[in-house]
Amino acid sequence: MSQRVKTGIVMLNLGGPGTLDEVEPFLLELFADREIIQLPAQRWLGPFVARRRAPAVRELYAKIGGGSPILHWTRLQGEGMVERLDRLSPETAPHGFYVAFRYASPKSEDALRAMEADGVERAVAFTQYPQFSCSTTGSSLNELWRAAGRLRLRDRFRWSIVDRWPVHPGFVEAMTDTVRRGLERFPAEERDQVLILFSAHSLPLRVINRGDSYPQEIGASVQAVMTRLGFSHPWLLSYQSEVGPVPWQGPSTEKVIRELGTKGRTHLLVVPIAFTSDHIETLSELDLEYGELAHKVGITSYVRAPALNDDPRFLDALADVVHEHLRSGDAHSVQYPVRCPGCVNPQCRNILNPVGI
Amino acid sequence: MSQRVKTGIVMLNLGGPGTLDEVEPFLLELFADREIIQLPAQRWLGPFVARRRAPAVRELYAKIGGGSPILHWTRLQGEGMVERLDRLSPETAPHGFYVAFRYASPKSEDALRAMEADGVERAVAFTQYPQFSCSTTGSSLNELWRAAGRLRLRDRFRWSIVDRWPVHPGFVEAMTDTVRRGLERFPAEERDQVLILFSAHSLPLRVINRGDSYPQEIGASVQAVMTRLGFSHPWLLSYQSEVGPVPWQGPSTEKVIRELGTKGRTHLLVVPIAFTSDHIETLSELDLEYGELAHKVGITSYVRAPALNDDPRFLDALADVVHEHLRSGDAHSVQYPVRCPGCVNPQCRNILNPVGI
Repeated sequence: MSQRVKTGIVMLNLGGPGTLDEVEPFLLELFADREIIQLPAQRWLGPFVARRRAPAVRELYAKIGGGSPILHWTRLQGEGMVERLDRLSPETAPHGFYVAFRYASPKSEDALRAMEADGVERAVAFTQYPQFSCSTTGSSLNELWRAAGRLRLRDRFRWSIVDRWPVHPGFVEAMTDTVRRGLERFPAEERDQVLILFSAHSLPLRVINRGDSYPQEIGASVQAVMTRLGFSHPWLLSYQSEVGPVPWQGPSTEKVIRELGTKGRTHLLVVPIAFTSDHIETLSELDLEYGELAHKVGITSYVRAPALNDDPRFLDALADVVHEHLRSGDAHSVQYPVRCPGCVNPQCRNILNPVGI
Repeated sequence: MSQRVKTGIVMLNLGGPGTLDEVEPFLLELFADREIIQLPAQRWLGPFVARRRAPAVRELYAKIGGGSPILHWTRLQGEGMVERLDRLSPETAPHGFYVAFRYASPKSEDALRAMEADGVERAVAFTQYPQFSCSTTGSSLNELWRAAGRLRLRDRFRWSIVDRWPVHPGFVEAMTDTVRRGLERFPAEERDQVLILFSAHSLPLRVINRGDSYPQEIGASVQAVMTRLGFSHPWLLSYQSEVGPVPWQGPSTEKVIRELGTKGRTHLLVVPIAFTSDHIETLSELDLEYGELAHKVGITSYVRAPALNDDPRFLDALADVVHEHLRSGDAHSVQYPVRCPGCVNPQCRNILNPVGI
């Protein structure tokens, strides 16, 4: 048996199918989550839509190597973070990390069972989404508490939450460095023609209009990165990955790329500002789909900035976020308990068995 | 004749009717501006809508003292700014300020004529909107260049532009101080119940979807103020003043106030984050209309943070923005020349006779 873990850090994220066989189960989970997608007669329509979309989505995953690399990156991030935390914060060591994906394995149950086995008492739910949205971090946290209830582990751990870190200096520095590395991929003599396009996952306007804080925090992240970069290049912000018939927050990344090409822009650096690891939205949507579109509309130099993945600066940032959080003694941010003004979810903004109470 | 002015600073803003008689002319100008409002057959429908709305708008101005105080505040701001600049930057002194409102007197022509009379050679077009939008700063700049053409003054001045300052440290500090003063208006023992609601003027989604940078910059301003405030209270961001049948960026301030009341919130501090002076949107919409709404929905303690107006910290900030700008030697920000990807305005992002070329 391994050494007992004193502080367990649960890394919350969306997750992704590791193999092509896992695509349909992943979509079934996604379309069953009423905190992110509301369909009429969801118990029947959800599986129907998921199964109908599965073949096309399988094809996309086949093109990026047969599965999502998000678990691979999350594990490397967890290892790097924990190793640094053991050095930074010996009083809370040994630290362990536990991956809890929302729609793929390992899930919240897997994380909680492993924490119990490791003898964890102090637990930190650490969202891997830098900017908070009820659709992402909110849904993951709610599922974590539900899973603890299902496993009868409601009183097993003392919890605190890192629920957002949109302008954490280490994150901003690491993200700025990905922009710098992206810029270096343009020939030096053409570099001043580059426009930087920050792209974030979109949200339905219904979610925005409830009062979700996501677009405010995205705007802040973008400004922080550009400030750190010394405003060396002009930039835009757009939103990607909208699906279905409902209206989404714009401007749409796809539409922006098309329009920029039409207006004669030739050099574009796309920066995923709301994801920390490569996954389908970077490798397929940004690299393949929009790369092809860019080429078609005359953007001859199209570069996507590297994801943070296992960049040592980012591992430093992850460790620093948790270290600062542990030192603060706070159970959560001042924002976390404030439900969206238009919230319709009876279960939200909870915390199980919090520290300091 | 007064002393010749070496550096003229044009303070661009929306403006407002100074008296009730000026309400209709103001609305006629506003509804004629195709850069902000597009109506079918605008030459006929614009005046029709303006005249139909005039009586109701006159009534609103009557309730806030018979006119907009925006010229009063802008003049005090200009005087304070110029006096500070003469001390900070003797090499560009004497400085003069010239108010150029978009829809009320004094207009761009008035400013340009006064600059000519004062012998100005070096001119700075300084937007009084901290966050850039094509609908506000963009429209004002375009009108300024057109007015210079109409007056045959195209080559009379060497121009540079301060086109945005959403996170300027002096602005952030002054804005944070208005939040602190707002918080002090709640009894000390109730202060920790306060939710801060930042409210910015909304934009039609059509403008947002063209790629206008306004919401990104608003998000950055909000984050900067909350960082400066040490995240002492939770906050939300909403958008106010939407009119007409088209969809606008949400969440709507009015709807948010209603929902917060319904959810049992009793202490609310509203902070106008995109305006620097009191005018109809603060004195009438936020104070009277939403104040009454808040009372109705159970928000027993509703406070609106003071506008920056002639706060000495804000006058320091205005002077510092211009001083930094003059020292940089830049004609404009790196963002200014980049048109929105979906721009449909043939005349935009220009600068007349720029410095340094």
